[in-house]
Amino acid sequence: MTRVGVVLSGCGHLDGSEIHEAVLSLYFLDRAGAHVVCFAPDVPQRDVVDHASGKPTGETRNVLREAARIARGKIQPLSKAHAHDLDALFLPGGFGAAKNLSDFALVGADATAHSELVRLVRELHAAHKPIGAVCIAPAVLAACFRGTGVHPLLTVGAKGGASDALGAMESRPQACTVEHCVVDEVNRIVTAPAYMYDARISQVALGIEQAVAALMRLAVRPASAVRS
Amino acid sequence: MTRVGVVLSGCGHLDGSEIHEAVLSLYFLDRAGAHVVCFAPDVPQRDVVDHASGKPTGETRNVLREAARIARGKIQPLSKAHAHDLDALFLPGGFGAAKNLSDFALVGADATAHSELVRLVRELHAAHKPIGAVCIAPAVLAACFRGTGVHPLLTVGAKGGASDALGAMESRPQACTVEHCVVDEVNRIVTAPAYMYDARISQVALGIEQAVAALMRLAVRPASAVRS
Repeated sequence: MTRVGVVLSGCGHLDGSEIHEAVLSLYFLDRAGAHVVCFAPDVPQRDVVDHASGKPTGETRNVLREAARIARGKIQPLSKAHAHDLDALFLPGGFGAAKNLSDFALVGADATAHSELVRLVRELHAAHKPIGAVCIAPAVLAACFRGTGVHPLLTVGAKGGASDALGAMESRPQACTVEHCVVDEVNRIVTAPAYMYDARISQVALGIEQAVAALMRLAVRPASAVRS
Repeated sequence: MTRVGVVLSGCGHLDGSEIHEAVLSLYFLDRAGAHVVCFAPDVPQRDVVDHASGKPTGETRNVLREAARIARGKIQPLSKAHAHDLDALFLPGGFGAAKNLSDFALVGADATAHSELVRLVRELHAAHKPIGAVCIAPAVLAACFRGTGVHPLLTVGAKGGASDALGAMESRPQACTVEHCVVDEVNRIVTAPAYMYDARISQVALGIEQAVAALMRLAVRPASAVRS
């Protein structure tokens, strides 16, 4: 059974994981036969946003405890995630990726990712294991790879804005519509724009479904990787 | 376009809407071409539960504001929901249905539902418009219909426990597996057990997918209803 780690960043698109993207990822992974293990950093959220008004509330919430709502309590601290226990990694989006897994929402192309995530992403890549990311989470991958000599092909949807930031972070941005995904076969990285577009949930689902299918295909290690 | 109201009860299965059930409902409804409008009561949650530990936190949160996380901000107070604006209604489950939409979690078969929901459910039924409910939410429907002379066929999964409570509330309980749903053609009520079972998300999705398909079929008013 393919073991896939899903990294969550809270619960709600304005201050945590985008809930539709997270649940659709869990659904398509489970339907594809993956054994999913959820992780989140055990740290305070950058902020808490009232999702009805869009305004900050001034509350304090913990990323892991809120992410546990999506994971139905079955979640571990990100520090416990290791490449040797996993066959693949998947990052749903939402502002939590840009606020809690990195500081991309604050500093754009100067972003750095959470140190545990940087370690995990680089471990997976070194082990030829695939990584998927949707919405703004590809920017977090770009931050993880910057300075390593790896220049992954990534999408965050349309050209301009966040896509330009990917280029400034030494990744190779590619435009992609909401129903599709981009596959970097060499680096085994799959990305889909999802709610980077103002789209219907069924459109977002099409892109995530394709990204999951590509991830599961790449999670079968090729002969060359097995030989090495 | 079929207009379907989805009634949420917070965000997280221990104190609000079951997130997987809610998102899968939104997904299958959207994919079936429904125009979805989310509603939630604008009231404090009965409690707030840490979903990592399963323990109450003592915090105060608002049902509508937390449900807005699932609805991506597009949500209205339940008091604004009226049968003449909707073709069908759908209730995901989670303890929020049994704590915030009713007091079933506290008093079982003596439960009463939120007054705005009682009004809305009875309006829909009187207008021959279908209602769907999954997980423990069918118990909320039972509370809405008790004393009206309507005895809907409902499922909350296996026999015993909550299923017996449905009978005590003047509904007709029927056992059902997680991958299926129960359809009361006469009363136009569709129910599926979902996470009343300790099941995989892909199994839960099968039941919800069928429930949504039945709801959408019933939302096309038959000639007899049009004549009346």
